[in-house]
Amino acid sequence: MIFHTFTAAHLRAFTINVFIKMGCSTTDAELAADVLLKSDLRGIDSHGVARLSGYVRLWEKERINATPNIRIVHETATTATVDGDGGLGLVVAPFAMKVAIEKAAIYGSGWVAVKNSNHFGIAGYHALMAVEQDMIGISMTNASPLVAPTYANERLLGTNPMCYAFPAGKYPPVVVDMATAAAANGKLEIASRANQPIPDGWAQDKDGKGSTDPNELKSGGSLLPLGSDKDHGSHKGYGLSATVDILSAVLSGANYGPWVPPFVAFLDPPTDPVGEGIGHFLGAMRVDGFRPAADFKDHLDNWIERFKSAKTVDPDKHVIIPGEPEYAFEQKRSVSGIPLIDVVVEDLNVLADKLGIERLKV
Amino acid sequence: MIFHTFTAAHLRAFTINVFIKMGCSTTDAELAADVLLKSDLRGIDSHGVARLSGYVRLWEKERINATPNIRIVHETATTATVDGDGGLGLVVAPFAMKVAIEKAAIYGSGWVAVKNSNHFGIAGYHALMAVEQDMIGISMTNASPLVAPTYANERLLGTNPMCYAFPAGKYPPVVVDMATAAAANGKLEIASRANQPIPDGWAQDKDGKGSTDPNELKSGGSLLPLGSDKDHGSHKGYGLSATVDILSAVLSGANYGPWVPPFVAFLDPPTDPVGEGIGHFLGAMRVDGFRPAADFKDHLDNWIERFKSAKTVDPDKHVIIPGEPEYAFEQKRSVSGIPLIDVVVEDLNVLADKLGIERLKV
Repeated sequence: MIFHTFTAAHLRAFTINVFIKMGCSTTDAELAADVLLKSDLRGIDSHGVARLSGYVRLWEKERINATPNIRIVHETATTATVDGDGGLGLVVAPFAMKVAIEKAAIYGSGWVAVKNSNHFGIAGYHALMAVEQDMIGISMTNASPLVAPTYANERLLGTNPMCYAFPAGKYPPVVVDMATAAAANGKLEIASRANQPIPDGWAQDKDGKGSTDPNELKSGGSLLPLGSDKDHGSHKGYGLSATVDILSAVLSGANYGPWVPPFVAFLDPPTDPVGEGIGHFLGAMRVDGFRPAADFKDHLDNWIERFKSAKTVDPDKHVIIPGEPEYAFEQKRSVSGIPLIDVVVEDLNVLADKLGIERLKV
Repeated sequence: MIFHTFTAAHLRAFTINVFIKMGCSTTDAELAADVLLKSDLRGIDSHGVARLSGYVRLWEKERINATPNIRIVHETATTATVDGDGGLGLVVAPFAMKVAIEKAAIYGSGWVAVKNSNHFGIAGYHALMAVEQDMIGISMTNASPLVAPTYANERLLGTNPMCYAFPAGKYPPVVVDMATAAAANGKLEIASRANQPIPDGWAQDKDGKGSTDPNELKSGGSLLPLGSDKDHGSHKGYGLSATVDILSAVLSGANYGPWVPPFVAFLDPPTDPVGEGIGHFLGAMRVDGFRPAADFKDHLDNWIERFKSAKTVDPDKHVIIPGEPEYAFEQKRSVSGIPLIDVVVEDLNVLADKLGIERLKV
């Protein structure tokens, strides 16, 4: 594979141009670009600018509203439901997280369910907004149905990520940001490109039999929940995914389970929706609502140090703190740039030509 | 194995007598008995009256305070930290959940971190307290270190359960109540009693090598996080367990990681504590803080029906709704009684003789 490396600033300017061509306001285009770039900077290549043409295709099908009227439709002091009006999740979710943070600033915590939205990028971006305010951030979203619950031979759930982020003192934030499937779809795509089998326990074929074919999803197969099979706790991965689905969509009035509209524009949404768009769930809790923030950070630093210095099976490996690899990527790529594989660069330049904007400078 | 069956009322009366002999008030003894019995009724035999002598042994070692002054030590409108004063978790956690529910009733949500507590029974009991008020209930606790994080060859985390409970309409509540390890310790004990090997991926030996010996924990081995190994997402199980540990203990001021005092009385707590006792985290959110409760319940019923009727791999199995098996147990055992294996009955009657209370009537 051939990689081309770009500065974050160059990719950001390109991305802003794309969103402006879609009709987004400058403010929204900048915010959406920041969310996508955060993913590329943090090394989560599957959720960054590589998805840009996917968002454009949804907009072309009129499944994304570039000028949404995002608004609170129901609330109490510390809870709210936000209607994303079909906007980019990249813009809707930060709006909702801001509402959660504002409520938390006054009352200690804030919780926002979102309906009528679209793919929101990496969950970590939104949770980290709270961390910047010395709050604990929580973010979740449901997603296109790809995962079969334990015993099922149907795709009923998305890879439904959940994220918990905590502010530390001298260390980077602890960020648990994970799909509730055994492996996210992006990992199957990487194996497929490399012509490699996937491990047992990631997917099953259309008959519900375990498979190591990375292309299984294209022939009617399903991803498996975290835990992979009943013996290894797949009912727990399924339970977590169900939790994300219920908080994000049953609570907000979005589509849930198999009714979630697919991210890919070539698949139409179900014709019998049970809600509006896809759903998210965002939360913020002030650390000093529980104990002084400095005490919490001191102890989280101690937690981090103890886990990092743990005895390991392989002396060349250390126990990884959740969020540590992504932080290291962010430090490195902010300086040395973001590598994109040539097929992604080509895809983005085809998009540039179509929209009549400047190409990426390779 | 020989089972003896008892009515819930008989076991409850016995359990109350034990807690009163420990010096608990009648109110506390009744509450603690209710929490333990809920576990037996729901079929979670590992967390019910079978643990009674374990609590007594901790009390004998003065590691449980039978007359605690449980109190709020820090709070905002919707957050609080509770000091359990070394009391039974079975009493401390319901106190804290009541605080969360009261805050939620006024402000929409309530969140309580707890320090200086002990084992709180099943997480589901506490989360279901919120469900009775048409709220979503969340409960977590940290626990004795038995689990090695990904790459580690040390026990740094407990089986740290998390529970999310949701009120449905015509169906029982959806209750996701799960250890964040691949398998809870109770499952190894069952395999050990039956002289059966355990599946690969549940445990590793003292050198960090995978093992199928159910007695591995007794010879320096560790449980593994949900996901079992890195390829299958053990870093996710570890991340969830870390989340529970941080919310329960780093946030409240309890002990975390390897400093959590062991449940078994024959192991002393670490001599260099980083906090007080063990920690819990409890939350409640009003469903109608997001949408009318009737709408939520209608859609959750629809969610349940869709998942229950899903196409399955084995036509004799259906997709199980989280909480469904436990509810079925509760319905059945409320009528036909609770079976206890003879070794548990014997253990309880030895306890009865020691405390000078009436034996179980076999």
